[in-house]
Amino acid sequence: MNLPTKLLATLVALAVFNGDALADGPYRNPDNKNALKDAGEGTYPVPYKKPVEAEITAALHRIRGYMEAQTPSNVVSKSTRAPITDFKVPVKDAVMAEGDADFGLQVYEMGVVHAGMLKAAEVTGDKRFTAMTARHFQFFADKLPYFRAQEQQFKLERANAFSRFIDPRSLDDAGSMCAAMMRARVAKIGPDLSKQIQVCGNWVAKQQFRLKDGTLARERPQAVSLWADDMYMGVPALAELGRMTGDRAYYDDAVKNVLQMSGYMFNPQLNLYTHGWNANHPDAPQFYWGRANGWAVLSMSDLLDVLPKDHPGYPKVLEQLRKSLKGIAQLQSGTGLWHQMLDRNDSYLETSASAIFTYVYAHAINEGWISPTTYGSIALAGWAGLSTKINDKGQVEGTCVGTTFASDQVYYYNRPTSTAALHGYGPTLLAGAEIIKLVKNPAFNIEHRVRTYHFVPKGGQTNYREHH
Amino acid sequence: MNLPTKLLATLVALAVFNGDALADGPYRNPDNKNALKDAGEGTYPVPYKKPVEAEITAALHRIRGYMEAQTPSNVVSKSTRAPITDFKVPVKDAVMAEGDADFGLQVYEMGVVHAGMLKAAEVTGDKRFTAMTARHFQFFADKLPYFRAQEQQFKLERANAFSRFIDPRSLDDAGSMCAAMMRARVAKIGPDLSKQIQVCGNWVAKQQFRLKDGTLARERPQAVSLWADDMYMGVPALAELGRMTGDRAYYDDAVKNVLQMSGYMFNPQLNLYTHGWNANHPDAPQFYWGRANGWAVLSMSDLLDVLPKDHPGYPKVLEQLRKSLKGIAQLQSGTGLWHQMLDRNDSYLETSASAIFTYVYAHAINEGWISPTTYGSIALAGWAGLSTKINDKGQVEGTCVGTTFASDQVYYYNRPTSTAALHGYGPTLLAGAEIIKLVKNPAFNIEHRVRTYHFVPKGGQTNYREHH
Amino acid sequence: MNLPTKLLATLVALAVFNGDALADGPYRNPDNKNALKDAGEGTYPVPYKKPVEAEITAALHRIRGYMEAQTPSNVVSKSTRAPITDFKVPVKDAVMAEGDADFGLQVYEMGVVHAGMLKAAEVTGDKRFTAMTARHFQFFADKLPYFRAQEQQFKLERANAFSRFIDPRSLDDAGSMCAAMMRARVAKIGPDLSKQIQVCGNWVAKQQFRLKDGTLARERPQAVSLWADDMYMGVPALAELGRMTGDRAYYDDAVKNVLQMSGYMFNPQLNLYTHGWNANHPDAPQFYWGRANGWAVLSMSDLLDVLPKDHPGYPKVLEQLRKSLKGIAQLQSGTGLWHQMLDRNDSYLETSASAIFTYVYAHAINEGWISPTTYGSIALAGWAGLSTKINDKGQVEGTCVGTTFASDQVYYYNRPTSTAALHGYGPTLLAGAEIIKLVKNPAFNIEHRVRTYHFVPKGGQTNYREHH
Repeated sequence: MNLPTKLLATLVALAVFNGDALADGPYRNPDNKNALKDAGEGTYPVPYKKPVEAEITAALHRIRGYMEAQTPSNVVSKSTRAPITDFKVPVKDAVMAEGDADFGLQVYEMGVVHAGMLKAAEVTGDKRFTAMTARHFQFFADKLPYFRAQEQQFKLERANAFSRFIDPRSLDDAGSMCAAMMRARVAKIGPDLSKQIQVCGNWVAKQQFRLKDGTLARERPQAVSLWADDMYMGVPALAELGRMTGDRAYYDDAVKNVLQMSGYMFNPQLNLYTHGWNANHPDAPQFYWGRANGWAVLSMSDLLDVLPKDHPGYPKVLEQLRKSLKGIAQLQSGTGLWHQMLDRNDSYLETSASAIFTYVYAHAINEGWISPTTYGSIALAGWAGLSTKINDKGQVEGTCVGTTFASDQVYYYNRPTSTAALHGYGPTLLAGAEIIKLVKNPAFNIEHRVRTYHFVPKGGQTNYREHH
Repeated sequence: MNLPTKLLATLVALAVFNGDALADGPYRNPDNKNALKDAGEGTYPVPYKKPVEAEITAALHRIRGYMEAQTPSNVVSKSTRAPITDFKVPVKDAVMAEGDADFGLQVYEMGVVHAGMLKAAEVTGDKRFTAMTARHFQFFADKLPYFRAQEQQFKLERANAFSRFIDPRSLDDAGSMCAAMMRARVAKIGPDLSKQIQVCGNWVAKQQFRLKDGTLARERPQAVSLWADDMYMGVPALAELGRMTGDRAYYDDAVKNVLQMSGYMFNPQLNLYTHGWNANHPDAPQFYWGRANGWAVLSMSDLLDVLPKDHPGYPKVLEQLRKSLKGIAQLQSGTGLWHQMLDRNDSYLETSASAIFTYVYAHAINEGWISPTTYGSIALAGWAGLSTKINDKGQVEGTCVGTTFASDQVYYYNRPTSTAALHGYGPTLLAGAEIIKLVKNPAFNIEHRVRTYHFVPKGGQTNYREHH
Repeated sequence: MNLPTKLLATLVALAVFNGDALADGPYRNPDNKNALKDAGEGTYPVPYKKPVEAEITAALHRIRGYMEAQTPSNVVSKSTRAPITDFKVPVKDAVMAEGDADFGLQVYEMGVVHAGMLKAAEVTGDKRFTAMTARHFQFFADKLPYFRAQEQQFKLERANAFSRFIDPRSLDDAGSMCAAMMRARVAKIGPDLSKQIQVCGNWVAKQQFRLKDGTLARERPQAVSLWADDMYMGVPALAELGRMTGDRAYYDDAVKNVLQMSGYMFNPQLNLYTHGWNANHPDAPQFYWGRANGWAVLSMSDLLDVLPKDHPGYPKVLEQLRKSLKGIAQLQSGTGLWHQMLDRNDSYLETSASAIFTYVYAHAINEGWISPTTYGSIALAGWAGLSTKINDKGQVEGTCVGTTFASDQVYYYNRPTSTAALHGYGPTLLAGAEIIKLVKNPAFNIEHRVRTYHFVPKGGQTNYREHH
């Protein structure tokens, strides 16, 4: 290796960790009171320590502030950006206002943000976290008639700012926000949106294209395709429909989709999901895209949150979740984050997938689904990495932008990341809130021993005293 | 990803390739007309785009020009480099002239160059591509008697410039050039070389050392060894002997060698070939050297090109090819190229293997052996990477030099690359020509949708229109 | 990322390849007499060549000198560091003197150093290698009564400098040094320590906490845990007890522990050991920490050295060793060293594990347990890497400091390395000595052919002569 190559290799190493939010590293572990003099303690690329509740809460509020500021709920002219105030007669170029980051209020990623806000409010008891949800939902209730009238008059189709609500045509349009509306209803946040829940619920349960065996499918990129992402676009909505209506057929459908999608897309050797599946060539090379695996485990986690324990699918979904979490854990990087392509350590570290995983590990431990002994420090390591991605402005850095189900690695490796990728925000809110629960969980002690973390069940006896 | 990070990522990409030809990157995809403003489109370390026929053709001509210039066909004095013009009385130090790159006219790598030239001529209709083949072969026909006389008089053995033709002693000496001569004969290029075909064909079919079960073998590096490379050094010649003579025994031998070599050297868990196998320790750790896997898949592809479809081996060879191509696809890098050691992403990106794979993916799709849906964009990505390796002089960069079957990774990782490694030229010609066929293949549409490529069978219906 | 961080990361990145001892690279292979002009020969990050006995011997003496200088055998006041010379009345703050590196004389790592010194003496015939062992052991014999009296009077427990000998409480305290004492006894080095052998032998065989099935276990980090390291902390002592006493029950116990630990911690798909196992969650993600795998294979090798060939466990242990060595070989890096996490090529190259592996490959070949054809050049490559880690002072660089059985990769990836980590010294001595035996082994020729090394059994015929 000649000198320029060495220099470049160095820069490579830097590029992996980079991002402004990391400017403070390398880090020493403050839980080791002797860290500076301890030859057995090194430095870390991320703040490896027991997470501090106040720091997490502050980070969650930064994100909340950024989300509030970036999601104006008012109507403007698309061409002039001037506010529209007369809602009696629809005009053709009326659209929702946009912040700099251009976060859509009705996109599926925003459904995850609402889930994160609800969770943060639940964990911290701070109602400021649900204010944005209430505001958005009230805006929907107020302006739906206006945009519906606009549609009747101008036939804008996908260009109508409310098209996802008025005329859903895909799971992306319907499932995630539908689940958010049903959860808000349970939490008594915002206005009555039951009519809209009917529209989106109906799309997911009855209208979406499916395989003949009932698996939720898409007609892109090929005529008959499955996306692992669609587990999230469908299953949580079906699960919440079950909870809301008490009709177990929704649970049955949710469970069936988890298991059948896993049958098509889960690699049981690696315990990972491939991004998607095309009916015209079922035996294809696999692409273990991080976020798709995130959606899969988040779906199962969301389903188990509401699925009755006596449902025959409960142990099957739990088993599938456990297998997935084992496979994903095996691939966590030395920074606590996961790679864009889970099995490729030369692909970049990706935030949204890392955030979903961190949430699901913490949540599954808190719910008793997986072992704290095994997964506790994996969840903490995840947060250590993730915490470096939340910058001072409340932006979440390092999230892969919207990504299609593709068939080559050049595409996946080179997807850009952006703070404008909304996919990272909801998961990071979820992760932070659940990590607070984890560090306060009374079922175990988180012991910092010989420079790492051990989750010892309450009452568990160790003999560290006998050790030099 | 902020700007400094992008810059670093670029340097990373450059560090990986480290060759002049890449000075232009990073690349934007010109098929995205909005690439500069599109937040969903990043940059690429290679020109990720639908390949343009004229650009490929120009690259093929650059290589052709370089090959012509580097392969003088005349006789010189080894000591003085002065031309020899009197061919009545042989002199001891008469050798073939050499260009700067020292490409041998009778080496097995040149057999692949001839295959590439024939393919380029077939695809482009431009006869300039076969001029070099005609010139070399005429030179052989003219000068064989002279060097045979030289040998009789001076007993130079391996030092005789025509030794591979006069006195072949290994598959390397015989198989690849033999196949080239038979293919030229079918294409009616060059003089009648049937006597020479008898010599080399006889070596491959009858004289080469074999295992007791008939598998083509070597007595190096151990007394009884197999090399995956030898699938190429033997099988295409056997296949062409079958085609030329109509004697099915040659086909039987070719099929047997594919299947038996696969039995010894193919890892069915990974769907990869290990470089070689020694009889004195059959259960050794494996070395998934890129080019050896290249020779294996190229052999199967060449065999299927001529094997009668009703031969009982046809579906078996096809199945073995499909398995191999699945395993190799799984390991394509984020640049479209493959690594020197296929399973090691910290080994360098190697051109000759990448070129062979790119050719075989494209060819297997064009022949209907594998799915365009699955492998089409893998072939395109391969070409995107490969195109950066063809420099302005027509040199192919980044090819691993001649490599023995070794038993440690220090050897494999640190093999140098060189534009004088002839192994990269033939495969790159093959790949470019076959990619032209691929992008013009009427069986599917190559759709650029949401920033990547989808090979949609003609008539296949997608619902992109419904998508935001 | 700010400038100091960049600088640090740079140094980190360089440290992976570099270290002062490597300042001379890149290297050319001196066995290729034409290396500078040979286009087929590249450069190497390590001195890839047939090891030269005199160079190894010199390196071993450098280490020996450093170890001697760093292990004073006298008693001092802990507070004043003044020598204590009156051993009639014990004083509370009497401790062993320490060198700069703070190597403990009774720690388990020192047991491996004694093994290395004995091996070096055996191979070189130079008795200077056993002088340190004799000196330490004499010191123990002389001062045990003093520290025992100190303990009776002051009850210092773990703070007593001789606590491991007086009052062992763990396998770390007992097994490795116990094996060292028994080996020295066989070699007639040092005083009679049979009483101390009884103490430590009794701890390993009878007192250490075990699973109900008899597997040697620990009560940390969880209440019931296994460590792959404990194969070394227990098995060699049990094996030496068998040899010393002739009581086959010790052999039975040693064999049982190898097989049962392997049952719990060996991954038969990868042929690797996970670092540890907790009874409260047996099915956890696995951590293939290098050194733990080192301890496992060293244990099996040590056991086979003394286990009677007719013991029913012999073929089982041999088979388990062979499987492990195959899995580990598969992951050797392109520098000949192995990574901190064996399956993660973005974790650093770690010396102690690499040294253990290099020793065990060389030893297993010399003993006829594994094939020289397959593993010979892997052992040489290991030494090529390792030799760069022994600096001019006789320090061994790049060894991971003491490491607990943890549950997250952030911990493992970021363990610091230090020349004060004693774990690297014994294995490097063992490796160097055994490599000398390997290159002089009369059973095979080490042939440097086409730029790499082939271990050709004596009498094995190759046909290199026929090759161009």
